Amino acid sequence: MNAQPKSLDESPFLLACRRQPVPYTPVWYMRQAGRSLPEYRRARGGMPMLKACSRPDVITEITLQPMRRYPVDAAILFSDIVVPLRAVGLDIDIKPGVGPVIGEPIREERDLARLRPLEPGDVGYITEAVTALVAELGPRPLIGFAGGPFTLASYLVEGGPSKGHDLTKSLMYGHPALWNALLSRLADITITFLRVQIAAGASAIQLFDSWAGAVSPEDYRTGVLPHSKRIFDALADTGVPRIHFGVATGELLGMMGEAGADVVGVDWRVPLDEAVRRVEPGKALQGNLDPAILLAPWDEIEPRAKDVIGRGRTAEGHVFNLGHGVLPTTDPDVLARLTDLVHEASVREPAGP
Amino acid sequence: MNAQPKSLDESPFLLACRRQPVPYTPVWYMRQAGRSLPEYRRARGGMPMLKACSRPDVITEITLQPMRRYPVDAAILFSDIVVPLRAVGLDIDIKPGVGPVIGEPIREERDLARLRPLEPGDVGYITEAVTALVAELGPRPLIGFAGGPFTLASYLVEGGPSKGHDLTKSLMYGHPALWNALLSRLADITITFLRVQIAAGASAIQLFDSWAGAVSPEDYRTGVLPHSKRIFDALADTGVPRIHFGVATGELLGMMGEAGADVVGVDWRVPLDEAVRRVEPGKALQGNLDPAILLAPWDEIEPRAKDVIGRGRTAEGHVFNLGHGVLPTTDPDVLARLTDLVHEASVREPAGP
Repeated sequence: MNAQPKSLDESPFLLACRRQPVPYTPVWYMRQAGRSLPEYRRARGGMPMLKACSRPDVITEITLQPMRRYPVDAAILFSDIVVPLRAVGLDIDIKPGVGPVIGEPIREERDLARLRPLEPGDVGYITEAVTALVAELGPRPLIGFAGGPFTLASYLVEGGPSKGHDLTKSLMYGHPALWNALLSRLADITITFLRVQIAAGASAIQLFDSWAGAVSPEDYRTGVLPHSKRIFDALADTGVPRIHFGVATGELLGMMGEAGADVVGVDWRVPLDEAVRRVEPGKALQGNLDPAILLAPWDEIEPRAKDVIGRGRTAEGHVFNLGHGVLPTTDPDVLARLTDLVHEASVREPAGP
Repeated sequence: MNAQPKSLDESPFLLACRRQPVPYTPVWYMRQAGRSLPEYRRARGGMPMLKACSRPDVITEITLQPMRRYPVDAAILFSDIVVPLRAVGLDIDIKPGVGPVIGEPIREERDLARLRPLEPGDVGYITEAVTALVAELGPRPLIGFAGGPFTLASYLVEGGPSKGHDLTKSLMYGHPALWNALLSRLADITITFLRVQIAAGASAIQLFDSWAGAVSPEDYRTGVLPHSKRIFDALADTGVPRIHFGVATGELLGMMGEAGADVVGVDWRVPLDEAVRRVEPGKALQGNLDPAILLAPWDEIEPRAKDVIGRGRTAEGHVFNLGHGVLPTTDPDVLARLTDLVHEASVREPAGP
């Protein structure tokens, strides 16, 4: 039952995203490509993160690495949410052990001019990498991705990673016109960036609004949702499944679906059967095993993974994933074993006689 | 209607905690004493945080500072959640701009011996400060506090502040016996620390399990709730209201009440009327204006504060507060204005003829 599909049409991942019957619950892992794999650390060597994200050969190699280890049902492009921001000329870098940092934060009207529109030609290396990957992956889907508008804005406004996103929120609350202009430009960049990936063959996309959960439901509705919605609407004609994810978004799940996602990603805080109640009908769910559980012995992992599979059955479609990215200290053999478990424990009984 | 109560019995804060009728919605602010006040920075001078927390004169002065500025309905003891851990001899300090750091983290069975029981004599300065404060405050209640078991454990296991609490969670998941032994010792220390404050005259206590929201509901139930419950149970005979708070605890609110809290604190993510639905009857609520909103213009603050007051009316008792601590850059004049607004906008109509 774990044979690879013969064509993308049969992909359990794409079927689940579309809420169609699947032979077993498909699975992939956020950050499956990257920091937890020794071959990733070898491939990167001393290469700076954003350098690696701009070289088609490196992107391709790192994206494929987990596909050689695990029978996961989708690949995810190796990239970073700040790639399109760097591509429009922002002085942004990824500091090891810190995260994205920007030379001059964006906090005023006059700073907006630095956020010019993205042209597909600015990210030719993405087109090249996705094209190569799609050829290599064959019937296995490639997921493209981009950062969500609140999360991108937070890095730009704060100047780097932030605990409470206080400056960002105070800009949103106190200067709504500037806030909306900023998010509008970010949405435009994101739309182009995702369309580039889809045009080159990505079978699905995920919008990571990782930190949107820092906002109250009411403020999310007025300050963030319209921009996410514009992004999803602008991709509707492509027909690819659109996944939307952030952490600590328990109160926002319904609106993340409303924004136009086909699949709502759920972190480990909300059990999937409860998430089903918070999301309107007509959506699939993705998630949601706590990534920290993978640092525990297998005996602790197995029942929790099965619990996620069981609760996932209450959704119209379920893509198994972690509730956030794979932690750097995760043992890849544990991810391999988990992948098999998800496939084996979720086999659907054939329809009756 | 904003006259100070003549005795503690009339304290709107204590009445609201006990779900009794109040003349107006009482209000205090987490971190009202401390970093946002210029007179606090003067009182601290260059004094290290834990030094300041061990000097009765400094504790008293800093606790009283916001009471001179704002007509808030309760004072909260100036202290830190790691004070009792330092008092039992742990090599713990608070690094400016970082937070609590511990020389040698606690990760193994043999480390537990370093967590000896707390004796009231270890924190004589707390007894002295609380006694002085209660005399000074008269009819205005003093809230004592302590850190919750998950949060204290996280600092001890991680060795300092942590983004994901991954080591802590992997200890909880993978080594439940060690985890429970650790939390049991922390609970014992916390019980003594809180009883010392109550014995000296604190009128209420708050257990800050700030980071417990990092845990899934199921893991909270098995790994954290029993220890919080033991703490609250051990205080039941004192008769003082027990408040329980953490951030991103939307899925845990019901269990935080079940643990034995009289008042469940809510961060800004869950509207109070929704929190009412998640908490069993017989509990008051506290919260929940986003502290970041106070950095915005007053026109943005006022409607949101009124919204909190309105939703708070659906609770059996409501203590107005922020959804987390006052941010360092908050203008004290805004807090003064907010305090007046809460009092004025919440005046209860006298009962009918």
